Amino acid sequence: MGKHNLIPKSFCQVGIIVNDINKTVAHYSKIFGVPKPEIIISGPEEKAHTLYRNMKTDARARMAFFDMGQVTLELIEPSGGPSTWREFLDTHGPGIHHIAFKTDTVDNTAKFMEKENIHVVQKGEYTGGKYVYCDAQKTLGIIIELLQDE
Amino acid sequence: MGKHNLIPKSFCQVGIIVNDINKTVAHYSKIFGVPKPEIIISGPEEKAHTLYRNMKTDARARMAFFDMGQVTLELIEPSGGPSTWREFLDTHGPGIHHIAFKTDTVDNTAKFMEKENIHVVQKGEYTGGKYVYCDAQKTLGIIIELLQDE
Repeated sequence: MGKHNLIPKSFCQVGIIVNDINKTVAHYSKIFGVPKPEIIISGPEEKAHTLYRNMKTDARARMAFFDMGQVTLELIEPSGGPSTWREFLDTHGPGIHHIAFKTDTVDNTAKFMEKENIHVVQKGEYTGGKYVYCDAQKTLGIIIELLQDE
Repeated sequence: MGKHNLIPKSFCQVGIIVNDINKTVAHYSKIFGVPKPEIIISGPEEKAHTLYRNMKTDARARMAFFDMGQVTLELIEPSGGPSTWREFLDTHGPGIHHIAFKTDTVDNTAKFMEKENIHVVQKGEYTGGKYVYCDAQKTLGIIIELLQDE
């Protein structure tokens, strides 16, 4: 086994694409009996440095997070330019887009994934870290996000 | 808030529909660097008492589980009669079908969900418990499974 395998217990997030984050956050809050979390807007192109299918993009998203213990539910409403989020919404409609794992170095783990024929579909930065989405739909049936806190 | 709200920290499972569980289990084992788990076949109609869209069905599934800490990844290859699993595969192809929560009483939680316009799509029994799938796609963008151990 390679040293950059995903660590099962580093599973930290389920990402859900939604059409209308204000309405959906209200539904989640009611079903789970918890206060509505803040809705956050992802950074602009000059901060996020987003690459989608190897092209620069001004992809944005409105996001909200629900604490479920080890795992956070992340709601994502795509906005702005082309992105894996927008592609998923256009192709599938709302639904579960990815599961995410913390890694020490997203770049090394992404290289390990490439060797397994799992390719990077989007990458970027956020305040405090960076992320890589790997399209594992052909082998694992899912998109996997790698997260690296700085 | 109702007393049968879902409890966020009872989040326990991510269910993934696959076409070929033997091949997919091998891929997951390699990516996560863990041994291949046993593949289990769900019980026959007379044990599972499956109801899909309020109709009796001989729905079956081949399943395998990967331990991720608080949460288990469940791989599901539909077989047998009509089911939410088969419907998802026919409609979306392989992908993340549901997230699951432990509840004290699935029936009471399902009644709470009904009041929120989230309806039961499938229910049944397994060795040691019972489950209910609630179709929350219109409100939460996802299918939620309720699990009750006996």
